[in-house]
Amino acid sequence: MRYYTIEKDGAERTAVSADGKNLYILPQFSDMNDLICRGGVSEIPEDAQAVGPDSKILSPIPRPKQDVLCLGINYAAHAVEADRFSSEAFGGDRPYPIFFSKRVNYSQGPDAGIPSYRGLVDSLDYECELGVIIGKDAKNVKMEDAAEYIFGYTIVNDVSARNLQTRHKQWYFGKSLDGFTPMGPCIVTADEFSFPPKIGISCLVNGEVRQDSNTGNLIAGIAEIISILSEGMTLQAGTIIATGTPSGVGMGMTPPTFLNEGDVVECRIEGIGSLRNIVC
Amino acid sequence: MRYYTIEKDGAERTAVSADGKNLYILPQFSDMNDLICRGGVSEIPEDAQAVGPDSKILSPIPRPKQDVLCLGINYAAHAVEADRFSSEAFGGDRPYPIFFSKRVNYSQGPDAGIPSYRGLVDSLDYECELGVIIGKDAKNVKMEDAAEYIFGYTIVNDVSARNLQTRHKQWYFGKSLDGFTPMGPCIVTADEFSFPPKIGISCLVNGEVRQDSNTGNLIAGIAEIISILSEGMTLQAGTIIATGTPSGVGMGMTPPTFLNEGDVVECRIEGIGSLRNIVC
Repeated sequence: MRYYTIEKDGAERTAVSADGKNLYILPQFSDMNDLICRGGVSEIPEDAQAVGPDSKILSPIPRPKQDVLCLGINYAAHAVEADRFSSEAFGGDRPYPIFFSKRVNYSQGPDAGIPSYRGLVDSLDYECELGVIIGKDAKNVKMEDAAEYIFGYTIVNDVSARNLQTRHKQWYFGKSLDGFTPMGPCIVTADEFSFPPKIGISCLVNGEVRQDSNTGNLIAGIAEIISILSEGMTLQAGTIIATGTPSGVGMGMTPPTFLNEGDVVECRIEGIGSLRNIVC
Repeated sequence: MRYYTIEKDGAERTAVSADGKNLYILPQFSDMNDLICRGGVSEIPEDAQAVGPDSKILSPIPRPKQDVLCLGINYAAHAVEADRFSSEAFGGDRPYPIFFSKRVNYSQGPDAGIPSYRGLVDSLDYECELGVIIGKDAKNVKMEDAAEYIFGYTIVNDVSARNLQTRHKQWYFGKSLDGFTPMGPCIVTADEFSFPPKIGISCLVNGEVRQDSNTGNLIAGIAEIISILSEGMTLQAGTIIATGTPSGVGMGMTPPTFLNEGDVVECRIEGIGSLRNIVC
């Protein structure tokens, strides 16, 4: 199943699709967090209301219940390019995964703008990432049991202000500006993928392929991430984990090349779809 | 005014006190976040229900709406001791404030336990901090206007697992384990202090004074913190900012001395009160 949050008659509604084309509103759920906590639906309800093609698709989770959990430096080729950009910020040994978080006051969906923060940000960058959505509260989960806790997957663009990310030492602020977490277009349930999913992940800027990898290349895999985090933290149903980005971000280019107003960023993940946003 | 969350007949209730002794339940507020968003009360309502001395005081905000925003290395003497413990993790130039966040699934109040995570954590540490509670949504706030956005102050113990904080590079995970954010005993409204508050802050372990400083020693002051953060992020009403800890934490001792099961940690801030917890 594919779950969407759409805007219909000025309100946010939760919708489902079996094929990614025909969408049906699910009035029994107050929002996506409610749907996730209640496990979603096993089939399209007979009385579900079909949605016309004019509906606006929002982020599947416009207001995450908590900060998005993020992995840093979790693809090998990205580790090399990040170290080249700033060995102080990104270099050194990494025997354990790097975790940080990203505040999300509001996550925007496909076709919405990414604010450029002219005057504050001089190095706006994209990071296409596979987002894992936790389906039930997870604590002390063994790696071999981790898959049971996954509700589904989405695309996250972990937009980053490199100048803020590095100058404040901890990455948090440069990752957490309003509008820095586009997600979408939908959540595809975990049963539609093998585990762990090994699927193409790419990012295009103004039509040029910048990132092109496969989620099979994650350094810390999804099961390991859930197992390590849940040893200390309860991962509540609805938790979003952004699993890290492959090489090809702007700071990794020679010379580093950042986003400007008007640039179109399109994140693609095989089996989920496309998340396209315009820098404004 | 002083606002409390208490447990009464098995339910969480919001309460107010003018003197810190006589508490009155405020049934018109569903919880502390609701109270903050609606500005609290200007006087004890005539029909307010007095609370007996048997009420259990909880964290004033048991379930923060978002991660707690935190300042790192924000007292000069703490910068020296942290660098001595690990220059890789804490050293270097800091021309800008260090921000990170702390996930809080549930904040416990006075007299509750701090879990020791035996086997996972080998270096459990305390950090007494002044917590600033934002009272209305703040975006692009100038330093001279920052005080208007503050609802009040509380005590936060920013409990930290030094081994996790350093080995995962970013500090987030070592700060975010379940039970690592005791707060309390209450929120004292901003009008009870001059701005910025210059008040004594101390921490005792098993009765021994370990930290003893004054919030006037903050490197990045409260107005500067709110101004910098709000240039990029909307600080929503109810946001908690932990402003950093003075010197005297366990990792700063010679040799480093960490918390063990049974240790009693008492954080004190002048004009707010005492937050006492036991490591379990």
